[in-house]
Amino acid sequence: MPQDIYDKIMMLAKRRGFIYPSFEIYGGVAGFYDYGPLGSQLKLNIENLWRKFYLLKDNCIEIITPTITLHEVLKASGHVDEFTDFTVDCKKCKQSYKVEDVIDDDIGIEAALKENKVKCPNCGTNLKDAYPVNLMFSTKIGIGSARDAFLRPETAQGIFTDFHLLYRYAREKLPFGVVQIGEGYRNEVSPRQGIIRLREFSMAEAEIFFDPKDKTHPNFGSIKNKELYLFDNEKEIKLSIEKAVKTKVINNQALAYYMYLTQDFLMTAGIDPKKFRFRKHAPDELAHYATECWDAEIFSERFGWIECVGIADRSAYDLRSHIDSSGTDMYALRKYDNPKTVEVKKIVPNMGKLGPLFKGEVGMIKTLLENMEVKDTKKISVNLDGKTIKIPNECYKITETKEKVAGEKFVPHVIEPSYGIDRILYCLIEHNYHEGKKKEEEYRMLKFNPIIAPIKIGVLPLISDERLIKIANEIDRNLRDAGITTYYDESGSIGRRYARMDEVGTPFCITIDHDTLKNNTVTIRNRDTTKQIRIKIDEITSYLASKVN
Amino acid sequence: MPQDIYDKIMMLAKRRGFIYPSFEIYGGVAGFYDYGPLGSQLKLNIENLWRKFYLLKDNCIEIITPTITLHEVLKASGHVDEFTDFTVDCKKCKQSYKVEDVIDDDIGIEAALKENKVKCPNCGTNLKDAYPVNLMFSTKIGIGSARDAFLRPETAQGIFTDFHLLYRYAREKLPFGVVQIGEGYRNEVSPRQGIIRLREFSMAEAEIFFDPKDKTHPNFGSIKNKELYLFDNEKEIKLSIEKAVKTKVINNQALAYYMYLTQDFLMTAGIDPKKFRFRKHAPDELAHYATECWDAEIFSERFGWIECVGIADRSAYDLRSHIDSSGTDMYALRKYDNPKTVEVKKIVPNMGKLGPLFKGEVGMIKTLLENMEVKDTKKISVNLDGKTIKIPNECYKITETKEKVAGEKFVPHVIEPSYGIDRILYCLIEHNYHEGKKKEEEYRMLKFNPIIAPIKIGVLPLISDERLIKIANEIDRNLRDAGITTYYDESGSIGRRYARMDEVGTPFCITIDHDTLKNNTVTIRNRDTTKQIRIKIDEITSYLASKVN
Repeated sequence: MPQDIYDKIMMLAKRRGFIYPSFEIYGGVAGFYDYGPLGSQLKLNIENLWRKFYLLKDNCIEIITPTITLHEVLKASGHVDEFTDFTVDCKKCKQSYKVEDVIDDDIGIEAALKENKVKCPNCGTNLKDAYPVNLMFSTKIGIGSARDAFLRPETAQGIFTDFHLLYRYAREKLPFGVVQIGEGYRNEVSPRQGIIRLREFSMAEAEIFFDPKDKTHPNFGSIKNKELYLFDNEKEIKLSIEKAVKTKVINNQALAYYMYLTQDFLMTAGIDPKKFRFRKHAPDELAHYATECWDAEIFSERFGWIECVGIADRSAYDLRSHIDSSGTDMYALRKYDNPKTVEVKKIVPNMGKLGPLFKGEVGMIKTLLENMEVKDTKKISVNLDGKTIKIPNECYKITETKEKVAGEKFVPHVIEPSYGIDRILYCLIEHNYHEGKKKEEEYRMLKFNPIIAPIKIGVLPLISDERLIKIANEIDRNLRDAGITTYYDESGSIGRRYARMDEVGTPFCITIDHDTLKNNTVTIRNRDTTKQIRIKIDEITSYLASKVN
Repeated sequence: MPQDIYDKIMMLAKRRGFIYPSFEIYGGVAGFYDYGPLGSQLKLNIENLWRKFYLLKDNCIEIITPTITLHEVLKASGHVDEFTDFTVDCKKCKQSYKVEDVIDDDIGIEAALKENKVKCPNCGTNLKDAYPVNLMFSTKIGIGSARDAFLRPETAQGIFTDFHLLYRYAREKLPFGVVQIGEGYRNEVSPRQGIIRLREFSMAEAEIFFDPKDKTHPNFGSIKNKELYLFDNEKEIKLSIEKAVKTKVINNQALAYYMYLTQDFLMTAGIDPKKFRFRKHAPDELAHYATECWDAEIFSERFGWIECVGIADRSAYDLRSHIDSSGTDMYALRKYDNPKTVEVKKIVPNMGKLGPLFKGEVGMIKTLLENMEVKDTKKISVNLDGKTIKIPNECYKITETKEKVAGEKFVPHVIEPSYGIDRILYCLIEHNYHEGKKKEEEYRMLKFNPIIAPIKIGVLPLISDERLIKIANEIDRNLRDAGITTYYDESGSIGRRYARMDEVGTPFCITIDHDTLKNNTVTIRNRDTTKQIRIKIDEITSYLASKVN
């Protein structure tokens, strides 16, 4: 059977410890993969490079929220109702399919099913009656009166539900960005694309909050002359960022800025610029929360153009929904030049009454009451533990005072770059994979950028001489103490050891040889040029540290 | 209400962006917390310090496996049957309790319930009829013929089920260690201890595989004279590692080595040595998989001694179980001095017959057959997708050949240090929390070790002069480009800004003042001494980088 590049990569990935199918000893399950020793370092390096772009360069802040998410959150966000795939079951062989996977692209779903044009790929029976299936994994928190919950379909909701706290952390100034890196889950009906379509995947998401009246970005000036690789659904074009915004190809500076940050990140990581483009979503393609969305697409020989990053303008959708559902004040403030005087209603909890009534829950109720936007002063209720609790009138006072108000409240808009880390990781392997023959033997190389390479340096004593091994071990130890990931290898011919390091993308190899004993020097071999230089042992760390970090 | 240190810390943690209660706008749920902007950096720094100890110092390898775990895996590991808490429900008020939480320590569970001695803490009713409740969150993969799954109670099983692949990666040499950092889940009946008892928590686990005949550690010599802080259930003692192993206080070198690594890691992170000890599990305390276990306990003023790390000898328990349940060859090889000749049975799949019969699943079945340990040559079956599939006789051949065998097969033993990152993080805050008054104002400081401090450097222009601000921004940018986390602050008096940085544990502040304009120098203030030095701007990065990394 001829192998395509995907088969070759997945074989190499398994053999050398990048990627394993999960639960393989129990027969495996589609949509789950493990990262082996090299895959995990590759993934961490990609994520840390991403942090350099978003935390250090763009001054975003990072948070970590649970993967288990309360039903209420995902009801408000629209995922309970909207996060679905049309699905069809085969009445005969009992297989289930995502409708999109079994119909032709150019025929509507309903038409296809009605006209008996869709056959079960497994047994050939006509498929009928598609129905929506929610794609979230569900679970329950606690026992007895358990709470309904889901595994999060995106990390973003953890950011939105903390908005008021994060706004305070950012000292109530817009724009500010919040990121989260972690697992997302999508209970695919029948995933068939290997590592490209996972049921549990790694995301890196940024939510940048803007005043809807001002979607400029403070650093726009520094990047406006750079070019973006765009695809207008017919042809690929390069366009300067400034021009793209001016001609409304891209709606605002903020969106364009994060598109460029994305492009810059992916190129730095090692994506081939010739296999990269941004494609704009058509109106009927947009997710339920988005007003504009650009996909960063990366080309794979096996899968074609893959969506690897989505950069969406989610407008005020999510914050608005959480304000409406929870009653919490999650507004931002647009400051007046001079404060105005307005009437403000605030709830002052009467702790003497609340305490005996609500015991252990009183602290939480107090917080909810104090943060509440007061609409109806006679009927006050809070949502607690999934129940709506009416608060008796004697438990609070409403104060109505004239207050100086510093500004006008509004719901911020959000620009969201959302990255699929696993897909990017796969594409980085594919784009950096090279093969050929050397002295009649198959030869494979991963030309990773040193910054993402899982092993930075191979440490190789030329022969199995104890004096060389001792020095090699010391060099290895010093590099590790300096925080650099090494691989020590003393077995096999030096050519074979170089080949092993090339195959996993190690950019440099240090060889300790007989001259080392004479003059304290070693050779450093560059993977891509195969050229070697000689260098003093005590200069190794400073020479290599700048090249691999 | 007088506050204890926990209340103070949790207030500071929320106000300054370390820790927020999850889903607070929907009333919250016990056992879930978010890490805010500073908490997330603190957590990442702790994990990266841990990686320095386990990956760089101890040469372990890291893997990443899914949080969703197949039923088969956790059935084999014993968690489906054994990972339970005795629970009791109140018939009147419908609350559920973990029995341990509602009985006195010195009375047996069954006796207490029988004698009507246990009352509902909520309504006072007598509690009866305890029953075991499994503590795993359950979910289903796919729809229709869905697969049962759980959220993993530990990261360890992902390592065990990949053992044969990892053993190959380690070039079939013992000992070698594999680590995983990630979420663990425990659906507590009614968690009541804030951040100490989470339903979703962060673990860092290492599984170090040993030949059971040789539980020595290659680096034991370098640490044998160090002292361990032990507690023998009566008094605390300090004992040299060598003596502890020699006198069998600790059963083997491997266990003692990882106890010391744990102690060294925790002290380096900033745990107070006076509030630290190892306590040995009594036989009736051991988990179902452990033969010996030591807890690293850390003292908290609110919670007393908390188990933060468990270091267990899991012997061959898990690998044995997975070999028995899956039929996969997960043995290690103890090499003979000279190869022996033995009879070996191997399955040779007949792909021509298997192919048409199993179509898409044939690749997986081939892998399972080839890795199988052959016991009964007439009845061959594999587990696939939750079903046991009998393989017809015509689909394979059994070859029985005399083979040279290089060694004797055995099931490796495992030493497991398992860290609860959230508890360690909380204890690090508690142990480094200092308070007092400065000029009549409350003053709080977190004396974090720079290596774990979420912000390394505050960058503060003395006054709001554009020339100072410009230089401050450049310094800030240069530090960030060098990978150092900074916080730029220009608002408020310089004293207040120092206080803000002290409160979140920032070890150094750079102040840009009028002398900066004259001679290109800045002051660097040390948090702990409050002493300031003057330094040239172009020496800042090299001066600080070594102090904060």
